[in-house]
Amino acid sequence: MDLGKIKYVAFDADDTLWSNEPYFRDAEEQFCELLEGYMPQHAIHKELFITEIKNIDRYGYGIKAFMLSMVETVINITGQTLQPAHIKRCLEIGHEMLTQPVVLLEGVEEILQLFYGKFTLVLATKGDLVDQERKLIKSDLNKYFHHIEIMIEKNEREYQKLFKRLDCTAEEVLMIGNSLKSDVLPVLDLGGSAIHIPFHTTWEHEKVDIKLDHPRFKELSSIKELQFLL
Amino acid sequence: MDLGKIKYVAFDADDTLWSNEPYFRDAEEQFCELLEGYMPQHAIHKELFITEIKNIDRYGYGIKAFMLSMVETVINITGQTLQPAHIKRCLEIGHEMLTQPVVLLEGVEEILQLFYGKFTLVLATKGDLVDQERKLIKSDLNKYFHHIEIMIEKNEREYQKLFKRLDCTAEEVLMIGNSLKSDVLPVLDLGGSAIHIPFHTTWEHEKVDIKLDHPRFKELSSIKELQFLL
Repeated sequence: MDLGKIKYVAFDADDTLWSNEPYFRDAEEQFCELLEGYMPQHAIHKELFITEIKNIDRYGYGIKAFMLSMVETVINITGQTLQPAHIKRCLEIGHEMLTQPVVLLEGVEEILQLFYGKFTLVLATKGDLVDQERKLIKSDLNKYFHHIEIMIEKNEREYQKLFKRLDCTAEEVLMIGNSLKSDVLPVLDLGGSAIHIPFHTTWEHEKVDIKLDHPRFKELSSIKELQFLL
Repeated sequence: MDLGKIKYVAFDADDTLWSNEPYFRDAEEQFCELLEGYMPQHAIHKELFITEIKNIDRYGYGIKAFMLSMVETVINITGQTLQPAHIKRCLEIGHEMLTQPVVLLEGVEEILQLFYGKFTLVLATKGDLVDQERKLIKSDLNKYFHHIEIMIEKNEREYQKLFKRLDCTAEEVLMIGNSLKSDVLPVLDLGGSAIHIPFHTTWEHEKVDIKLDHPRFKELSSIKELQFLL
């Protein structure tokens, strides 16, 4: 991979800089336990997932959206046997998620220090404004980024808007993230470069079954390997 | 008011460009009707308001935050007599809000056309990313704005971040909005100019009891009066 033309390096946040998906997995497990008297856990999990996907257009991504989907699923599953404790527990699960610590992945700070000054660094993440702002403050990584973009979706249209805001061309951008669907494919399609660093847990909605071979693409097993590109 | 130094004109969105607060007032009324068997409507209203304010740090602003506060209030008020229909109705009220039309206030499009090209126009609004994006698309006003900023809060700190992003000084900015607290006071304090255009309905949380007399401040009764400043 040739970084000759690259001026902007954009990092995804959740599960690229810090751990996020495991909190959602934990929350889902707690949600399934809450309702295990009603149906098998895998069936509850499926109900919740269907509700979440149905609600993406309406709510977007993030913890508040997830909480509202839990509430809706609880009603669908419990029916007339709904107890106040069911709903209270959904709110509690969400509130716990909102106060989780932000745990940086290994090597993140060193890599940002290494790239800082050599490129203009951008944080490009989707999700909820309040969630992401909170995590960014807790992470103390704010200082490395010239620009922070919280995107409504990570598709070609939204990346084009980002590049316009940065006043740059796609050819000048390298995007780094854990999702092929959100961080890699749209950026490659626009003419940019992308690096995929898989995280051990991926939300089903982000999964794509594809083997990529592309001159402007690279897969790494850890963010620490970025140092060898310089 | 002297616009000599002004290069950037920033507009608030909700209740400055389009009507928003009436939808929240309607939703609150529907919520109070849902629970009127439990306590007088003004008491329900107060419970909801207290819950909303308590949750601002946690949830931020917007319809999803409002929905979660409705759900929490319903549980507090109904206790063990909670019915699934109560929660369903809260979700329904929220979903109706999410599909409301965007109704521009009178004269908005003409004023944007008049200011477009003479200044760099910015949309600076707080609220939920998904809500605001949806309204902006529906409004078809996107084309007038060089920059759209959805802010987590409208305080001095966040305005400073915005000015840094725009690469401008506060002295070059005129902010226009319906909230003294969010659109006027922090901008004046930073050295910018501000115009207040009151809307007929203001959320209690945004109310400040103050009579402003300031060389960089003006109050107008309608957005149409902005034409006389040019």
